[in-house]
Amino acid sequence: MKSGIPGFDEMVGGGFHQGTVNTITGSSGTGKTVFASQFIHHGIGQGEKGMIITPSESAEYMRREMMSSFGWDFGALENDGKLSLIDVTDPVLRLQKSIDVDPVDFLINFRKLVERKLQEEKPKRLFIDDLTAFFMAVEAPFKIRSLTDDLFGTIRSSGVTCLVTIGTAFGTNQFLEYGADSATMLNRERIGNTLIRSIYVMKMRGSKIANSIRVLDISDDGISVSTLSPYP
Amino acid sequence: MKSGIPGFDEMVGGGFHQGTVNTITGSSGTGKTVFASQFIHHGIGQGEKGMIITPSESAEYMRREMMSSFGWDFGALENDGKLSLIDVTDPVLRLQKSIDVDPVDFLINFRKLVERKLQEEKPKRLFIDDLTAFFMAVEAPFKIRSLTDDLFGTIRSSGVTCLVTIGTAFGTNQFLEYGADSATMLNRERIGNTLIRSIYVMKMRGSKIANSIRVLDISDDGISVSTLSPYP
Amino acid sequence: MKSGIPGFDEMVGGGFHQGTVNTITGSSGTGKTVFASQFIHHGIGQGEKGMIITPSESAEYMRREMMSSFGWDFGALENDGKLSLIDVTDPVLRLQKSIDVDPVDFLINFRKLVERKLQEEKPKRLFIDDLTAFFMAVEAPFKIRSLTDDLFGTIRSSGVTCLVTIGTAFGTNQFLEYGADSATMLNRERIGNTLIRSIYVMKMRGSKIANSIRVLDISDDGISVSTLSPYP
Amino acid sequence: MKSGIPGFDEMVGGGFHQGTVNTITGSSGTGKTVFASQFIHHGIGQGEKGMIITPSESAEYMRREMMSSFGWDFGALENDGKLSLIDVTDPVLRLQKSIDVDPVDFLINFRKLVERKLQEEKPKRLFIDDLTAFFMAVEAPFKIRSLTDDLFGTIRSSGVTCLVTIGTAFGTNQFLEYGADSATMLNRERIGNTLIRSIYVMKMRGSKIANSIRVLDISDDGISVSTLSPYP
Amino acid sequence: MKSGIPGFDEMVGGGFHQGTVNTITGSSGTGKTVFASQFIHHGIGQGEKGMIITPSESAEYMRREMMSSFGWDFGALENDGKLSLIDVTDPVLRLQKSIDVDPVDFLINFRKLVERKLQEEKPKRLFIDDLTAFFMAVEAPFKIRSLTDDLFGTIRSSGVTCLVTIGTAFGTNQFLEYGADSATMLNRERIGNTLIRSIYVMKMRGSKIANSIRVLDISDDGISVSTLSPYP
Amino acid sequence: MKSGIPGFDEMVGGGFHQGTVNTITGSSGTGKTVFASQFIHHGIGQGEKGMIITPSESAEYMRREMMSSFGWDFGALENDGKLSLIDVTDPVLRLQKSIDVDPVDFLINFRKLVERKLQEEKPKRLFIDDLTAFFMAVEAPFKIRSLTDDLFGTIRSSGVTCLVTIGTAFGTNQFLEYGADSATMLNRERIGNTLIRSIYVMKMRGSKIANSIRVLDISDDGISVSTLSPYP
Ligand SMILES: Nc1ncnc2c1ncn2[C@@H]1O[C@H](COP(=O)(O)OP(=O)(O)O)[C@@H](O)[C@H]1O
Ligand SMILES: Nc1ncnc2c1ncn2[C@@H]1O[C@H](COP(=O)(O)OP(=O)(O)O)[C@@H](O)[C@H]1O
Ligand SMILES: Nc1ncnc2c1ncn2[C@@H]1O[C@H](COP(=O)(O)OP(=O)(O)O)[C@@H](O)[C@H]1O
Ligand SMILES: Nc1ncnc2c1ncn2[C@@H]1O[C@H](COP(=O)(O)OP(=O)(O)O)[C@@H](O)[C@H]1O
Ligand SMILES: Nc1ncnc2c1ncn2[C@@H]1O[C@H](COP(=O)(O)OP(=O)(O)O)[C@@H](O)[C@H]1O
Ligand SMILES: Nc1ncnc2c1ncn2[C@@H]1O[C@H](COP(=O)(O)OP(=O)(O)O)[C@@H](O)[C@H]1O
Ligand SMILES: [Mg+2]
Ligand SMILES: [Mg+2]
Ligand SMILES: [Mg+2]
Ligand SMILES: [Mg+2]
Ligand SMILES: [Mg+2]
Ligand SMILES: [Mg+2]
Repeated sequence: MKSGIPGFDEMVGGGFHQGTVNTITGSSGTGKTVFASQFIHHGIGQGEKGMIITPSESAEYMRREMMSSFGWDFGALENDGKLSLIDVTDPVLRLQKSIDVDPVDFLINFRKLVERKLQEEKPKRLFIDDLTAFFMAVEAPFKIRSLTDDLFGTIRSSGVTCLVTIGTAFGTNQFLEYGADSATMLNRERIGNTLIRSIYVMKMRGSKIANSIRVLDISDDGISVSTLSPYP
Repeated sequence: MKSGIPGFDEMVGGGFHQGTVNTITGSSGTGKTVFASQFIHHGIGQGEKGMIITPSESAEYMRREMMSSFGWDFGALENDGKLSLIDVTDPVLRLQKSIDVDPVDFLINFRKLVERKLQEEKPKRLFIDDLTAFFMAVEAPFKIRSLTDDLFGTIRSSGVTCLVTIGTAFGTNQFLEYGADSATMLNRERIGNTLIRSIYVMKMRGSKIANSIRVLDISDDGISVSTLSPYP
Repeated sequence: MKSGIPGFDEMVGGGFHQGTVNTITGSSGTGKTVFASQFIHHGIGQGEKGMIITPSESAEYMRREMMSSFGWDFGALENDGKLSLIDVTDPVLRLQKSIDVDPVDFLINFRKLVERKLQEEKPKRLFIDDLTAFFMAVEAPFKIRSLTDDLFGTIRSSGVTCLVTIGTAFGTNQFLEYGADSATMLNRERIGNTLIRSIYVMKMRGSKIANSIRVLDISDDGISVSTLSPYP
Repeated sequence: MKSGIPGFDEMVGGGFHQGTVNTITGSSGTGKTVFASQFIHHGIGQGEKGMIITPSESAEYMRREMMSSFGWDFGALENDGKLSLIDVTDPVLRLQKSIDVDPVDFLINFRKLVERKLQEEKPKRLFIDDLTAFFMAVEAPFKIRSLTDDLFGTIRSSGVTCLVTIGTAFGTNQFLEYGADSATMLNRERIGNTLIRSIYVMKMRGSKIANSIRVLDISDDGISVSTLSPYP
Repeated sequence: MKSGIPGFDEMVGGGFHQGTVNTITGSSGTGKTVFASQFIHHGIGQGEKGMIITPSESAEYMRREMMSSFGWDFGALENDGKLSLIDVTDPVLRLQKSIDVDPVDFLINFRKLVERKLQEEKPKRLFIDDLTAFFMAVEAPFKIRSLTDDLFGTIRSSGVTCLVTIGTAFGTNQFLEYGADSATMLNRERIGNTLIRSIYVMKMRGSKIANSIRVLDISDDGISVSTLSPYP
Repeated sequence: MKSGIPGFDEMVGGGFHQGTVNTITGSSGTGKTVFASQFIHHGIGQGEKGMIITPSESAEYMRREMMSSFGWDFGALENDGKLSLIDVTDPVLRLQKSIDVDPVDFLINFRKLVERKLQEEKPKRLFIDDLTAFFMAVEAPFKIRSLTDDLFGTIRSSGVTCLVTIGTAFGTNQFLEYGADSATMLNRERIGNTLIRSIYVMKMRGSKIANSIRVLDISDDGISVSTLSPYP
């Protein structure tokens, strides 16, 4: 399945595999949300219905940012029934997210919500924006592992192709990457006085991947992988 | 929205976005308070009402320091109704800050105070000086995340443009930067026997940012970003 | 016993010793599962019955991946009685794996399951895919040690030759390698802009091992050890 | 206010500000006590009454050391009413310091003692020798912060100019520096086979500070800042 | 007392001192068991009775490995009454080693077992294979220290010369080395693409030790210290 | 007071100050016990009575080692009443040292024992061999600090000159050095393939100390500071 990120599919020998869960890891501002949004936006252009679930930022906010940064009109695509943008904090979903809720309960309910929404909407592409804070709240690594397995299992069995973004602030990225079908790392490295965005695919099950770190560019046209390498 | 920091707006393609929360991170003495105070002072010069909330230092202290360092007369501006300087320890506010108060309660009440003050004063620019100590006191990262989301959400929905300074002593900067719309880092780096102030914008949602580290200068005229890079 | 990994047996003076437990350690995507699967697949080609126990991924998933990546038809081999692929989450096994089960209980029951299956199936080669998450859940290192000793003892006394893969995300690899008869490390190292897979045998009791780090290749033909070294 | 340390006032554009709290941080033996004692001794020579509070070493000990090292006769100055040297372990003060006292209680009582003594003696210069061990004993950073704010507030409102020395052994220096008006760092760096004392001013609110690391000398004449830099 | 390791006695000016406890520390596969087994085997060749206590691996396993690796027939030596190989898990010893036993109790009983066995068998050389896992299970360093003192005291007072191997996986090596009469470190260092075994004697009370790191070789003839140094 | 270590007194401008507590810190085998024993032995040669307190090794053991290593006959000196060697585990002292005793109690009783012994024997030089394990067992740094203050205060007020050795394995050295009058560091540094012993005086209150790291030699004549520096 074409990622829609120019240069990326060549790195992994053809794009993401259908029915897989793929992580995009990076610290704040490395381009995770742009990468995954473009994956969704590109899919819609191919006639593949998209779904975005934002556990930590309001959907309204994402609509505005993608419009102003890249001219992607998510609101219009929602109205056309080509995209469903789900804000878990929406009271209709009754998925309480507050300081009083138990993170394990939240994650179990979150999994159920994802399952129901996938059945209702039957999207081809799914993007779940950074839910590491919730996993971080689960103390036992053993439980994190089980909850990840359950969520990823639910997603895989629906046949949708999914991107999950992961912040590095919470130190749980390893647990999620561990259970994923592919793991991509976004970085920003200091070369002299300059900070260069970089991308590197750590693994993709079933694919031969490029053994190299590449430069990642963000411009008004969106995100793309350059054939350049970040190191001089 | 012009930052009022010479050289900064060029780094981020035009300044801060209106209605956003922006973090300024750095260790003690890197210039965070000067940077954000100048943002407020500049706004007032543009006819934009300012508000400063100081959770950890007395307002009186800030008035004196800004006057003596840069000749910015915050007291006069307050009298003219152009600035409101709020000291959370003011007994009138009844926002108890003591070793007996529960940090979560404090943060919830702090959010309510901010909300009320924004409604009453309707400032265009807001500066909240370093509240990391309070977040640090919250043990579960999950709760820090929720409390940050709530506070930042409250601020955004008021339409004010906000700068939040963050000390690095408490290790919580990542959690706050995570939920912010832009994240700027101030540093002091040793080049030989000299310590150079530096600035670097880690992210700004919706803007193309300069991929470089610049020198930051503080003089009697205030703070400014040089076009020089700190490394030889 | 021939490993079936071209180039590996020469590194360790002849292959794995029969009736031993051997660990393959590496971070996500370094090739652990491919290495151990090829060991099983090669054995079957030699007429040695194989067994694969997957505590953390569904057997179905492994069947598909090995078929699509390397054309190894595990499903057909199972039907021919040459391979048994055991998914511990299979309800028939009643080996509950959930967030409510006590990890010590799970590991004790897991050992019993392995023991029973080895008696029933009498395989010559065994591959247990990454059970570090379970060990990680055991708090006292002392207990991890005892549980490892018990499991490895059970396996050794059956006479089967076993490969155990170990993820590094959970920090327990040292405990398992400690009790194993050989320990092999898979890595991915950055040489300039390139990431090279590497292999290194840390110990093999009773064998003279090559004191060198070698390049590891994965292609459509499977995994193999090159005579090249990863460093220029 | 002149520090009395030759070369220091030039580094910070004129000395310490009156009515401020200033930290001197460094590991054991870097010269903190000598630096702050000279600040007091110099003040007395200028007709400014001094006060020294030693929470962790007996006053008698300090009298002997300053006499033998630099010929400063603190005992005589006390008799002349120019200096008051307060040993918190003095039974008269009833400020119990033992392994049974709660550190928070100790710090609250310590603040009260400081307040009372400042009122009684009305010194112009105050030196509090290393109370980090007490802060270290307070577990919640949030409480350390509050207690620091309270103590520093008490001192500032008395108008005295205060130096607080901070050992690095206890890891709490950041919390205290954070709330201080200036922060100076003393170090000992290995250059080849030699260990050179160095000084560096991290921040001084309201002053332009030298952006450089300087050599610090201790001799029979006391401590002084050289114009040399420690690095070749 | 000659160690029996070619090249080692020259490093320490003559070998181990009689009636001492000596640690051999190293990570998994560095050659600790081979080193200490050769010490025992060599002693037997000199007419000195040997004893090996294996708390963590079955004696049977050690017999097989030493035979196949180096042709040392431990089984025959036991039959001849020249060696006693004690497996603490032997039910006859009633030294329960399970996940339910308290590590402190285990270590106290272990000390008693060692004492009794030394009285019964009166060996000249003793080798205790890696009991760090047990010490690791004791939480208070203070208790580890006491238990080590007790065990080492028991051994010394019997007059036997003892080697204790220590794995580094458990982080307790420092505590054991601390109380030992000599401490030797085995390592494997990467020089380019090659991994070289090395040996270094950290301390030997009462002996002048070589201040150098040497290469350690393992071959069919056993282990020996080369006069080469591992670094080019 | 002459240390008796050739080359050391020149480093610190004359030796140790009378009536002070001085720490000698270093990892296992760096020469701490030899350094402090020579200090005692030298004092006896000058007619100054010595006392050695060994909390962690039997006195008998020290007698043998010093005799065999350097020909210092501590047993004879004890018989002549010139040295008293106190083993705290001596049942006569009733200073129980076992895994059941509370470390705080032990340290309080230890202080009393030291006080009593100093009064009874009136030595001029005291050497306390490594009691870090006991301090390590005290959890609150605050209490460690108090207990150190008490012990060091007791020693100082007796007028004896004391050396306390401190192992680095327990991480408490900073707390003890902190309260001491001088702090000396012994090291072993790897220069190429060679390990060189080194010495460095971190602080000595009231003395100008050499700002350099020197080579330390141990030979049959005891320990001495070379004028060489360890680095090439
Ligand atoms: N039109 C644009 N041109 C260049 N850079 C942009 C543009 N729009 C946004 N960006 C940059 O892209 C980044 C967006 O990153 P984002 O995907 O939100 O990061 P993450 O999700 O990893 O935190 C921001 O740092 C922003 O500066
Ligand atoms: N007029 C001035 N000229 C130069 N530097 C100044 C001037 N006034 C203040 N400063 C410096 O600016 C810094 C102020 O930093 P501040 O904004 O308070 O830091 P932060 O809030 O990050 O702790 C101080 O270190 C001070 O030395
Ligand atoms: N046919 C192929 N050619 C080249 N590389 C492949 C091929 N099939 C799979 N791979 C690579 O092999 C790796 C498989 O690793 P895997 O054994 O699953 O890792 P681990 O078990 O250590 O997590 C993946 O990163 C994938 O990119
Ligand atoms: N007259 C002197 N000449 C040179 N150095 C001295 C003299 N007197 C004391 N010193 C040195 O000054 C240091 C005193 O440091 P001090 O201020 O007590 O350190 P701190 O308070 O940071 O632990 C000691 O290390 C000592 O060696
Ligand atoms: N005959 C031999 N020739 C060369 N190397 C051998 C031979 N026999 C065993 N070895 C090596 O010696 C090592 C044995 O180490 P061992 O003493 O068991 O390590 P440890 O006890 O430190 O874990 C193994 O790594 C093995 O590869
Ligand atoms: N006669 C000697 N010649 C040379 N070195 C010796 C001699 N006697 C002992 N040593 C060395 O001195 C060291 C003694 O160190 P020691 O003072 O016991 O260390 P610590 O107390 O720091 O653990 C030992 O490592 C030993 O090798
Ligand atoms: Mg994002
Ligand atoms: Mg500030
Ligand atoms: Mg795998
Ligand atoms: Mg001091
Ligand atoms: Mg071993
Ligand atoms: Mg010693």
